[in-house]
Amino acid sequence: MTFVYKSDPVRGAVWAELFARKMPELPFRIWPDIGDPREVRFLAAWQPPTDLSTQFPNLEVLFSTGAGTDQFDFSTIPATLPVVRMVESGIIHGMVEYVTLAVLSIHRDWRTYLDQQRENTWKAHRVHPASSRRVGVMGLGTLGRAVLDRLRAFGFSCAGWSRSPQQIYGVQCHDGPDGLRDFLARTDILICLLPLTDSTRGIFSKRLFDQLPRGATVINVGRGGHLVQDDLLQALDTGQLSGAMLDVCEPEPLPPEHPFWTHPKVVITPHIASMTQPETAVDAVVDNLRRYRQGLPMVGLVDRGRGY
Amino acid sequence: MTFVYKSDPVRGAVWAELFARKMPELPFRIWPDIGDPREVRFLAAWQPPTDLSTQFPNLEVLFSTGAGTDQFDFSTIPATLPVVRMVESGIIHGMVEYVTLAVLSIHRDWRTYLDQQRENTWKAHRVHPASSRRVGVMGLGTLGRAVLDRLRAFGFSCAGWSRSPQQIYGVQCHDGPDGLRDFLARTDILICLLPLTDSTRGIFSKRLFDQLPRGATVINVGRGGHLVQDDLLQALDTGQLSGAMLDVCEPEPLPPEHPFWTHPKVVITPHIASMTQPETAVDAVVDNLRRYRQGLPMVGLVDRGRGY
Repeated sequence: MTFVYKSDPVRGAVWAELFARKMPELPFRIWPDIGDPREVRFLAAWQPPTDLSTQFPNLEVLFSTGAGTDQFDFSTIPATLPVVRMVESGIIHGMVEYVTLAVLSIHRDWRTYLDQQRENTWKAHRVHPASSRRVGVMGLGTLGRAVLDRLRAFGFSCAGWSRSPQQIYGVQCHDGPDGLRDFLARTDILICLLPLTDSTRGIFSKRLFDQLPRGATVINVGRGGHLVQDDLLQALDTGQLSGAMLDVCEPEPLPPEHPFWTHPKVVITPHIASMTQPETAVDAVVDNLRRYRQGLPMVGLVDRGRGY
Repeated sequence: MTFVYKSDPVRGAVWAELFARKMPELPFRIWPDIGDPREVRFLAAWQPPTDLSTQFPNLEVLFSTGAGTDQFDFSTIPATLPVVRMVESGIIHGMVEYVTLAVLSIHRDWRTYLDQQRENTWKAHRVHPASSRRVGVMGLGTLGRAVLDRLRAFGFSCAGWSRSPQQIYGVQCHDGPDGLRDFLARTDILICLLPLTDSTRGIFSKRLFDQLPRGATVINVGRGGHLVQDDLLQALDTGQLSGAMLDVCEPEPLPPEHPFWTHPKVVITPHIASMTQPETAVDAVVDNLRRYRQGLPMVGLVDRGRGY
């Protein structure tokens, strides 16, 4: 019985060391050095091999090394194989940091001050109270909730939207297609933390932007596929949106000639909002393996029907 | 009996309206339209008139419209006149926002990513856990404590230094000249929130920078007078410091030809970290006037011996 890791090999070496310490009874191998494929019961991968079921006939669980599983081609994954997303504190902390930084930088006119510095200009702009800033998060999973919890501490006026009804302390919650209009109409800074599924692909489109108050800002920390790029450029150019911060793009890396790079209202970061941290990721996987052995539900188990 | 406001007249008009609502029994006047000077019992000012005691012979309390009183020339202020700093939630919230933004932008390499965007470069850098980042705040008054409380929520390793011993939950506290060495030796990101007094003027000097770990960063949100500018430039040029974020300078505005503007390792903002918010400032003053009438100690009363 072995555990195989198939992702960045440098990180894999760190995983191996941590596994040896935390679950020494389970042999740990790094792709492509997998040993006897029939022995492989657990696979952690960013991209599983396309011939998964022939390659690993006795696989029991597939772990994603990322927070999402949208990079998986589910048509190649046996329908009965449990698939588990990465839910670990390193990803959560990184995302809370990034979104707080992004929201505060919009709230406190950071870009304006950096531009003014380039012109040697000392000019103060009014500070608006956080309570007058309406922040909205789409996607109320672990990440969305953690982000809202931190933003609420600053006194921002917080709302959330999700597919199914949710209740979060201090957050105005909206749900479903019917709840979207009211949610968007009250949102000055919109954050995408949705999973990428057939029903959320392209959701950041002209139709959605037009329902925001004029001059709103958007932050995409979901997936590049959530955004219709031409619609964003148009909304920025008409002034319907006043800015966009994009940590995810399609494709990645964003090609050097892409207009986002030089657009004065767009900030691009290279998918760094949040990264799996080996220490906490291994803790999460080891914890799930123990749960699996004990017949308990694993944390982050994907519902193949919903797609996340 | 009247209350006189002597500061920015636009803000004064907002104060007048709030005062009329919250303390209608006390006539409120905006400098220079002060009416009978003998009637003036209370003055709120950024800069009081230099002939304060002849101008207002019956003055009972002087309120600063700012968080500090270092802009006052105490030699012109009668020794027995109570002087009150502004302690109000608007200033606190603004400072917590600014310092969080500054620390997160250092922690998450924001400047590097903005520079990379100008070169159309998609390149991720490692995310370090917040727990490995040692943040230190000098000055543990209301602002320093509020800032530490928020930074602690992100998991940063937090320490504080003050003149006299303090205890703050989750923060390693150091005090006095003897405690400074250990505090500095463990601080990667150093924040100045000290009052400006004879003993703190010029405290951000070569001597202090040399005691920080090599490559540390400093954030000055105290006063421009805390910093020895040439020592900072030298420490940045030798690499002892890797960056500085300065919201306060001497003089202000910073002259257009000053080398800070164009230094690649310096971020300048025009004294906007925190501004008195009229609504909460008037609440604080009205509350203090009630305390004064009832013989209770006013919040923010300055100890003329300590200088804050």
